Amino acid sequence: MPSSSDQKTAVGANRQIILAGLPGLGPLTPEHFATVDADRPVPGPGEILCRAILLSIDAANRAWMSGQTYRSQLSAGDVMSGITVAEVVDGNATHIPTGSIVSCEGGWQQYAAVPAHTAHRIGPIAPLTHYVSVLGITGLTAYIGLLDIGRPRPGETVVVSAAAGATGNVVGQIARLAGCRVVGITSSDQKNNELVEHLGFHAAVNRRSESYREDLREACPDGVDVYFDNVGGATLRLLLSRMNIGGRVVCCGAVSVYDGQAPDEGMPASIVVVKRLRVEGFVVLDHASRFAAAQARMAKWLADETLIAVEDVLHGIESAPQALIGLLAGDNLGKRMVRIGPDPV
Amino acid sequence: MPSSSDQKTAVGANRQIILAGLPGLGPLTPEHFATVDADRPVPGPGEILCRAILLSIDAANRAWMSGQTYRSQLSAGDVMSGITVAEVVDGNATHIPTGSIVSCEGGWQQYAAVPAHTAHRIGPIAPLTHYVSVLGITGLTAYIGLLDIGRPRPGETVVVSAAAGATGNVVGQIARLAGCRVVGITSSDQKNNELVEHLGFHAAVNRRSESYREDLREACPDGVDVYFDNVGGATLRLLLSRMNIGGRVVCCGAVSVYDGQAPDEGMPASIVVVKRLRVEGFVVLDHASRFAAAQARMAKWLADETLIAVEDVLHGIESAPQALIGLLAGDNLGKRMVRIGPDPV
Repeated sequence: MPSSSDQKTAVGANRQIILAGLPGLGPLTPEHFATVDADRPVPGPGEILCRAILLSIDAANRAWMSGQTYRSQLSAGDVMSGITVAEVVDGNATHIPTGSIVSCEGGWQQYAAVPAHTAHRIGPIAPLTHYVSVLGITGLTAYIGLLDIGRPRPGETVVVSAAAGATGNVVGQIARLAGCRVVGITSSDQKNNELVEHLGFHAAVNRRSESYREDLREACPDGVDVYFDNVGGATLRLLLSRMNIGGRVVCCGAVSVYDGQAPDEGMPASIVVVKRLRVEGFVVLDHASRFAAAQARMAKWLADETLIAVEDVLHGIESAPQALIGLLAGDNLGKRMVRIGPDPV
Repeated sequence: MPSSSDQKTAVGANRQIILAGLPGLGPLTPEHFATVDADRPVPGPGEILCRAILLSIDAANRAWMSGQTYRSQLSAGDVMSGITVAEVVDGNATHIPTGSIVSCEGGWQQYAAVPAHTAHRIGPIAPLTHYVSVLGITGLTAYIGLLDIGRPRPGETVVVSAAAGATGNVVGQIARLAGCRVVGITSSDQKNNELVEHLGFHAAVNRRSESYREDLREACPDGVDVYFDNVGGATLRLLLSRMNIGGRVVCCGAVSVYDGQAPDEGMPASIVVVKRLRVEGFVVLDHASRFAAAQARMAKWLADETLIAVEDVLHGIESAPQALIGLLAGDNLGKRMVRIGPDPV
């Protein structure tokens, strides 16, 4: 029988975004979500109560609705899943004190009770938004995917797709720091200007342009040594034809096929053989032992401004569904997040 | 002006198989070849004159007719290219003495003049046929592809396609020596019996069977950790769906698409990400620095009969076209070769 100190009572409201229905293979729409006001949860033994400050919006959120990922599929009626930076408002006698700042899987809601062992304490030594962008999962994905999986050498050409996205822009910036020629692929001339003017990309091509294939060729006069793939599909297939012998393809995601937009055309084995390619998929959570070192390095780059955090912040939990729908349509620049509550005073 | 010792005169006839016409994307037929009797070639400076003993017949021979490989495409009228084990009948004052046995690219003819620096001397410490099979390119491909690229661990499940072929049967035998569960895929129950009865495979499935997909599932109760792909296409795509997390796919060739049989369906990037697969292509000639060690190890295994050389020997240079056409149709068991002349006395 639990002791009386384990008994807590819910206090106050908790606005949540529920997954009202699964989108199946079609595009995600606002009708797939519903806003509800629930009671604030009560942390059970070993759980902490977290107040959400910032909610990360990620293409992977969409994949979680379709199964076939590194985690179990979401069901209709669930609070939508998502990673938050949160303030611990009740440490509940766990190892995480009240008042700590953590990163946790709080979901799309103002308050969440989460197992303390799944929450990660944050210093913080940088603005909290950086723990969602460069120092969060997408920035870590860029760092580990590019450096540990892609292993670029100085002088090589690195191409990254979804280059203005949360992961892509960091991949490009780190590849530049590694001494590579960096070429981004996006779907907009405006984003491309940003990449070249402010983020140090050597070139950027628009995949919606009529001259896309020629533009890509001109941008990569020495071929492609590392392709960091965020989109899969036809872009991946085109890039395979541009890879140099011994090239590496980092498979990070396939956003073009998440939202029912395109069939997954696939990579022909023959070209993998002829060009001696290494095509490697990864899920960044497998590399947690590398996170602290990667964050320390990137925090230093952020501090001396050799790396720029590109952040796209929307406000209010009610904006989260449209934030994700827009992200899947490619309307973000940099890391998209939703501010759910104020920083701690 | 060359000295008189460089001047040689052709002596005797030289039967050759010419590539009469390119097959394009369609199947190879006897009409693509012609037999001619030419003069025996005269070695120029730095060249040696080689008498062919054994001619290796390889699926790659077909790919050389289609371009898009690691070497330049063949043209109509060329002597068909191929690797031979040959006796040097005129060392021609190079570093290779007359009477040596060499492996060289002699082509489909009885006598060839080849640059001495492209010929590799053979001990020989084993029957000459072994230098075409296990100790030749296909056996080296198995050894290096499986151990260096696939990196199997004891207890893992290794699946190999074209498992009764020259490379596949050696892959399976080495995987068994590495402590793995070994499953072969072929197109015939008769071949499968051979693999399980005589070569130590734990199971073998027939891809032409109605119950192929279920048979494969039953043969791999713990999933697949390493898939050694010799065929590409639909088999590769099916195996991707059976890979375990962290699995490795060794892309060695795509024989199913060489001879116009099937479109190359390709590998979806999404599954590469979700399963954290490493898909790696290789061309064994890039790994020449490893050949001597691999040959020494395999010669030992052959001598103590832990590894069996499976050889499929046809006789007479005139049988070479049908030998290749049949190989592409899968009618060989083990390494196919053509004996062109007798061993040296």
